[in-house]
Amino acid sequence: MALSAGEVRKIKKAAVVDGVLPIFHERWSARAFADRDVAQEDLKRAFEAARWAASSNNEQPWRFVVGRRGTATHEKIRESLTGFNQAWAGKAPVLILGVAKTRFSHNDGPNGYALYDLGAASSYLTLQAAALGMTTHQMAGFDRAKARERLGIPEGYEFGVVIALGYQGEPESLGNEELIRRETAPRQRRGLAEIVFAEWGKAMEW
Amino acid sequence: MALSAGEVRKIKKAAVVDGVLPIFHERWSARAFADRDVAQEDLKRAFEAARWAASSNNEQPWRFVVGRRGTATHEKIRESLTGFNQAWAGKAPVLILGVAKTRFSHNDGPNGYALYDLGAASSYLTLQAAALGMTTHQMAGFDRAKARERLGIPEGYEFGVVIALGYQGEPESLGNEELIRRETAPRQRRGLAEIVFAEWGKAMEW
Repeated sequence: MALSAGEVRKIKKAAVVDGVLPIFHERWSARAFADRDVAQEDLKRAFEAARWAASSNNEQPWRFVVGRRGTATHEKIRESLTGFNQAWAGKAPVLILGVAKTRFSHNDGPNGYALYDLGAASSYLTLQAAALGMTTHQMAGFDRAKARERLGIPEGYEFGVVIALGYQGEPESLGNEELIRRETAPRQRRGLAEIVFAEWGKAMEW
Repeated sequence: MALSAGEVRKIKKAAVVDGVLPIFHERWSARAFADRDVAQEDLKRAFEAARWAASSNNEQPWRFVVGRRGTATHEKIRESLTGFNQAWAGKAPVLILGVAKTRFSHNDGPNGYALYDLGAASSYLTLQAAALGMTTHQMAGFDRAKARERLGIPEGYEFGVVIALGYQGEPESLGNEELIRRETAPRQRRGLAEIVFAEWGKAMEW
């Protein structure tokens, strides 16, 4: 018998660290989505957060195409998903395609930070969604050529990400043993010693 | 007479939106840094947040080299800065170089999301720093070849970003009219109609 959605939330929550905003430890990427729609105001709040991310030259290269369930856009994004993502992500009530403008608007020069900045804006979006009790899952597994063609994304915008957004569902609804295993496994991260150095390869001493 | 640091904070704060975490509107990128050190525990909290960002295949490709004022690492990062950044960023008590591993650890395949994921982790870091009353400024303007050589960053890690971190200082301390103008100008962002589409080029209706 699979764990319940509530039990999963407890497993996924990282250990609290005094003085750190709880949202960083609470956000996680579900695959099981409940059959529950997202209010338009809450979706707007998620993008309102994304809008305020920092970006190189304040270019704000991020653009989001948003498909709500039942629209052609949702269907087109869903059809572009590949592999395992096809099995679960289509159930999310909102699918978002995120792309980034590859040239600066002020001088048409190449923007080497377009994807970096898209990553920032998307992370703001996912944190704000989590703050509102929603869950998100960012995916790299989709067919870029298909997405570009179906959704009419012009040259000059690079992919990008697909983000599934909605409310957490019951793990059992995934109907696949491997997906249920992932859904109910604790989150893991590298320790600080692996990622923060006083000089290259030498861990910062805390 | 330039505005005070407190007046600047009011100008930089974006309009509150009901239901959106205040931190997204409060974070901004200062250039004037106060002559005040950052407690080691607070620096650690910023990286604790960064650690929990989402990443493709949970690779966590981000690595940060952290230079505190007075260390050789701070000096090396400072020397790699270019243009305007040279004029102000060296005063930050902490300079952080962020790089991203370009290949997945599990199969050595190329990771096209390395910079995207670094952008996410850096944005977690900057939000958490803001939550603790610090300010950060992410920079693209630095000499990558020089930074690679001086800091001994091996092949297989791409740049990346330099992040200045500390406490906001008085705008006048910038000692440069253009920098003071930027420091005291309201933050600007594209409206949602420019970045959120129901289909490409057609703004989402809210």
